Amino acid sequence: MTDSQLRDDVDAISRLKYAYLRCLDTKQWDGFQDCFVPEATGDYNGLEFADRETLVGYMRENISEGMLTLHPVHHPEIDVDGDTATGRWYLVDRVIVDAVNFMLEGAAFYEDRYVRTADGWKVSHTGYRRTWEMHYDLTDMKVKVTGGVSSDRVRNERGHVANED
Amino acid sequence: MTDSQLRDDVDAISRLKYAYLRCLDTKQWDGFQDCFVPEATGDYNGLEFADRETLVGYMRENISEGMLTLHPVHHPEIDVDGDTATGRWYLVDRVIVDAVNFMLEGAAFYEDRYVRTADGWKVSHTGYRRTWEMHYDLTDMKVKVTGGVSSDRVRNERGHVANED
Amino acid sequence: MTDSQLRDDVDAISRLKYAYLRCLDTKQWDGFQDCFVPEATGDYNGLEFADRETLVGYMRENISEGMLTLHPVHHPEIDVDGDTATGRWYLVDRVIVDAVNFMLEGAAFYEDRYVRTADGWKVSHTGYRRTWEMHYDLTDMKVKVTGGVSSDRVRNERGHVANED
Repeated sequence: MTDSQLRDDVDAISRLKYAYLRCLDTKQWDGFQDCFVPEATGDYNGLEFADRETLVGYMRENISEGMLTLHPVHHPEIDVDGDTATGRWYLVDRVIVDAVNFMLEGAAFYEDRYVRTADGWKVSHTGYRRTWEMHYDLTDMKVKVTGGVSSDRVRNERGHVANED
Repeated sequence: MTDSQLRDDVDAISRLKYAYLRCLDTKQWDGFQDCFVPEATGDYNGLEFADRETLVGYMRENISEGMLTLHPVHHPEIDVDGDTATGRWYLVDRVIVDAVNFMLEGAAFYEDRYVRTADGWKVSHTGYRRTWEMHYDLTDMKVKVTGGVSSDRVRNERGHVANED
Repeated sequence: MTDSQLRDDVDAISRLKYAYLRCLDTKQWDGFQDCFVPEATGDYNGLEFADRETLVGYMRENISEGMLTLHPVHHPEIDVDGDTATGRWYLVDRVIVDAVNFMLEGAAFYEDRYVRTADGWKVSHTGYRRTWEMHYDLTDMKVKVTGGVSSDRVRNERGHVANED
């Protein structure tokens, strides 16, 4: 394989990962599903999935409109070997469920596997291990959350709401 | 166009974006202005600008020394077509105005347009759509902020200041 | 140097930086040390080190198990000149010491220097300048921290612990 082909593969795998995370955070579940091969497996710090259908179904059901998520990744360490590849990424994530005054912040290292298909590179395994995680109870914090479908409904449920505009 | 030229363009556009954000967060307004063509437009989640002069003037006036900003971008999805290009980026930003106990955290997807000029690639349009945003009232939080010119002046205005050093 | 060699150098330097930060945040001090030449210097916003031994020794001693760190970098601006190179990166970092209810968030621009050795690219100088920094006293915040060796021991020391699971 030439250098140029190798770079094309790394670029394509990166954009696959970005699409996966963009679809996750914007709740575009059909686009999210397209990132995987059907037999893809997952292991999110012990939360395991045996195939794509189970994994995507779980996300579709649990990441509802009232849950805001943020999943940027950093530091790609991608190695291509013919028609398969591995990728390590440094995730810094956040989950906010304003209706129950919950916020999570955390970090993790993804260890993914990718496979070349007739339809481009796809995820064959994704998973991460946490380095740390923080859970906030927002009840007594003066925080206003906006975003997502249900945020207007829930944003006034806490007693103290700051910086109304 | 060869692969190598295409990669040079993507690299140059990336560094243009990094310079734009570095100048923004370090308040180097002349360098910030150099990132745009004069006819550049902007649309920051509905805050619109019809040309570079208006856009840069707004930033120069509103992002004063007492306002600390953070604008890292992630997940470049850049497509070059001859002398124009488009770029999607995932922004995670923060704005802190300690004097009024205000902090904003949020995320957005940038959708930029770029144009090749005799002086290199420049921004012809920049704008983003928010995925979520949080506004914090820091009044009752034990937080000490440092940075920027006026931070020493304002850092003791809150009653509770943590971890003085 | 051909374009392709130049890109290989930039890629290798990027992965060196990612390894440096991954070893830092996962406390793999031998791997961390391998990122530097022995005569490497450091300057973290005024905290200076005259050689690798002092720098690595300081990190090994001060970043103990109960201290959780996060060091993702963004916006690589890397320039290679033969067997040396410079790199600017935008750091967004966090330090958590749950046992003393302390959290730091901040941002900085790294200005690194790299050198090509028989064992690949290494760091010859690393350092950054802060744009801003926030210190949180977590005492009265309802936050649960997990991660690291000692986190289970300390996580119940604050009065209010949210979202036990």
